[in-house]
Amino acid sequence: MNILIKDVLVLPMMASGREETLFRGCVGISDNRIEMVGHDDQEADRFRREHAGSLCEIDGRGKLLMPGFINIHNHVAMTLMRSYADDMPLMPWLTEKIWPFEAKEQPDDVRLGAELGIAEMLLGGTTTFVDMYWMQSSVAEAVCRSGIRAVLSPCFVDNRFEEFERDLMTVMDTYVGNCDGRIGVMIAPHAPYTCSSEHLSRALELSRRYDIGINIHVAETESEIETIAQRYGKSPVVYLRDLGIFERPAIAVHTVYLNDEDVAILKQYGVSVAHNPQSNMKISSGIAPVVRLLREGINVGIGTDGPCSNNDLDMWEEMRSASFLQKVATGDPCVLPAYEVLKMATVNGAKAIGMEGQLGEIAEGRLADVILIDICKPHLCPQHDLIANLVYCGKSSDVDTVIVNGRVVVEQGQLLTLDTKTLCRDIQTRVEEMLRRH
Amino acid sequence: MNILIKDVLVLPMMASGREETLFRGCVGISDNRIEMVGHDDQEADRFRREHAGSLCEIDGRGKLLMPGFINIHNHVAMTLMRSYADDMPLMPWLTEKIWPFEAKEQPDDVRLGAELGIAEMLLGGTTTFVDMYWMQSSVAEAVCRSGIRAVLSPCFVDNRFEEFERDLMTVMDTYVGNCDGRIGVMIAPHAPYTCSSEHLSRALELSRRYDIGINIHVAETESEIETIAQRYGKSPVVYLRDLGIFERPAIAVHTVYLNDEDVAILKQYGVSVAHNPQSNMKISSGIAPVVRLLREGINVGIGTDGPCSNNDLDMWEEMRSASFLQKVATGDPCVLPAYEVLKMATVNGAKAIGMEGQLGEIAEGRLADVILIDICKPHLCPQHDLIANLVYCGKSSDVDTVIVNGRVVVEQGQLLTLDTKTLCRDIQTRVEEMLRRH
Repeated sequence: MNILIKDVLVLPMMASGREETLFRGCVGISDNRIEMVGHDDQEADRFRREHAGSLCEIDGRGKLLMPGFINIHNHVAMTLMRSYADDMPLMPWLTEKIWPFEAKEQPDDVRLGAELGIAEMLLGGTTTFVDMYWMQSSVAEAVCRSGIRAVLSPCFVDNRFEEFERDLMTVMDTYVGNCDGRIGVMIAPHAPYTCSSEHLSRALELSRRYDIGINIHVAETESEIETIAQRYGKSPVVYLRDLGIFERPAIAVHTVYLNDEDVAILKQYGVSVAHNPQSNMKISSGIAPVVRLLREGINVGIGTDGPCSNNDLDMWEEMRSASFLQKVATGDPCVLPAYEVLKMATVNGAKAIGMEGQLGEIAEGRLADVILIDICKPHLCPQHDLIANLVYCGKSSDVDTVIVNGRVVVEQGQLLTLDTKTLCRDIQTRVEEMLRRH
Repeated sequence: MNILIKDVLVLPMMASGREETLFRGCVGISDNRIEMVGHDDQEADRFRREHAGSLCEIDGRGKLLMPGFINIHNHVAMTLMRSYADDMPLMPWLTEKIWPFEAKEQPDDVRLGAELGIAEMLLGGTTTFVDMYWMQSSVAEAVCRSGIRAVLSPCFVDNRFEEFERDLMTVMDTYVGNCDGRIGVMIAPHAPYTCSSEHLSRALELSRRYDIGINIHVAETESEIETIAQRYGKSPVVYLRDLGIFERPAIAVHTVYLNDEDVAILKQYGVSVAHNPQSNMKISSGIAPVVRLLREGINVGIGTDGPCSNNDLDMWEEMRSASFLQKVATGDPCVLPAYEVLKMATVNGAKAIGMEGQLGEIAEGRLADVILIDICKPHLCPQHDLIANLVYCGKSSDVDTVIVNGRVVVEQGQLLTLDTKTLCRDIQTRVEEMLRRH
């Protein structure tokens, strides 16, 4: 399929330099790639002639075209537990609610929960997400069916290592390379305090053997810092460095509590950070030193975290919270300005998953993951600065069209690949049935 | 007009006790008041018989009915400057951008800016707002036309006192009592550092003479605390108390920096606080001690602040930010739980404007300001806890129907009283013209 989007405001979001410049132009998509980014009607006409016969044209007037969001941290199937346990202290939250519920989860529950979360993400303009959870092969099914792009990270804690290995093999053998190439894979040890050094080393070995990256929660809470100091006499970051984890491409998730040495290590090894501001706020983890990390040149992307600790999967809100939280934490209203936050949610995310130059930008040759925003809404007017409007006022409901891998999956705000009404009904029935399960 | 909403989930939000209980029922509205809140079909049938002939029936299936939001702090006409000046230090922001732009504002600009902001608020489920700005008689026109309810607070700084007095008289003489009784009034000295003691005393006298409340920015920044300490040797709260300001019904806006004595004074005088979490974050003011204020029994409502420092007028996001910010600031994920935040945005707001028992609740005899939320959306499923879903996942775009003073102003997410497309176009033309003005 070929798609021509005409007469649209284009926000390229290029990783290199400060390409803030919006321009009115046209974008041509052929198969799963952006084939043409043009500034005038001649270019549109040429694309139309070259692809006559199988061309879908989209009128871009009143819309802005930009790369889809890359949500680099999620546990998407936890939609099953959305609003199941809020406003609780950490330990009762885990021991009385989350873990007992998770113990009931079967693969088809995870598949259904993932479909619900993916529906929400696609409708809000997220075109790629990084997931970290058990039963990632069930999440892979939902990814295939829904049309989204994903990096799936089978996860383990010490007592689920064998299950993790099987899950990893299934995802790699059955899904990576299939599903239109929309699925990538990483290895996810849950955290330094839930995985033994032995298991971390075995995960590292698998990461080397299959040449895939590592995705791990690090330095999320003060209690983690204390635990790791007691066990190993060092910080979580130093501990993981000493094990060799950061010799692999890695995403360090949260990194709320970092000392100077930790920051230097993340920089030295080119580790990407997944910042989850709303989760860090809601479960009272703390405030990650994002401004400092960015100043050091560390790549920081944005994640929603799972729907138990957020509770939605909305990258618009996450961008806004990222900026606002750093402004209030540093006392400086200039930090994390709008364009920098947009980069975190797009190009920085692409870099974190090893797809810099492939995703997160609007340019010829890139994968065709693009979104169209309806900018004719009261909350987006007037347009003194469209980029500020996007970051400080944009909403999921402003997303009109979503294209992933060259395929239109959301049109006029409606999801084409999954039936959301049925999904909402099914999920309610399912969780009620799960709560009755022994 | 009479309205019967059948088969709907009702969230009453009563100020007294912990009336969290959702129930399936029906609500009958007659003229501008809630006449019937029923639990079964018989009550709906009786209402239907009693109002046969002029009855509009709304099918509430798949929807939740609750009081509209009360946004207790806004400068709504500043939509004109939305995205005009972001990510800047305070003084250049004010002196190079905001003040020069404001110097160009004419009454009809303010009317148009207010219409845009009101459109946004109504679409997001806000049914009452408290405004603080110049030219409130122009805002009053927009309030009348749009169907929203408002408490308008003509504002002054020292060099605009006479203008303020004229504005106050016009609002009181022309609008209060007209416009279906939807307009109330307060007096708004801008802040202790921008208004002399003499002008504050004159404002106090007007407040007594006309028996209206006072609405003032207080203790927003550290620099304000220093300025007032240098000038008067006391805190802003003590200074205002000593002038007699708090002997009047009052809203203290922001109150980010409070000492023990300040908190005791707010409690003693029954001052309400307007908390504006996103504004406090975005312009780096700081974090207001909301948990402490609530524990002391002080009435705290929620405001968006103006669209230059937020930048949207979205009470859903403001509720979420209020809760998240207190959770991260206190390190306690249990504080500001979902229901308490919903109360802040409804009943507490009603109390702040002296309309407790009139607004902010669903009960017989209350003014008919109610909203219907479409709860069949992926981000609101499953429904383990609908109140948590509303506060942690709800969005302006989930608002289906808005009724203010017994009149339907938003239906199926469309505003009936103003043409938003025309408004967006007009506002763009207007601000471009304003920027060319000398």
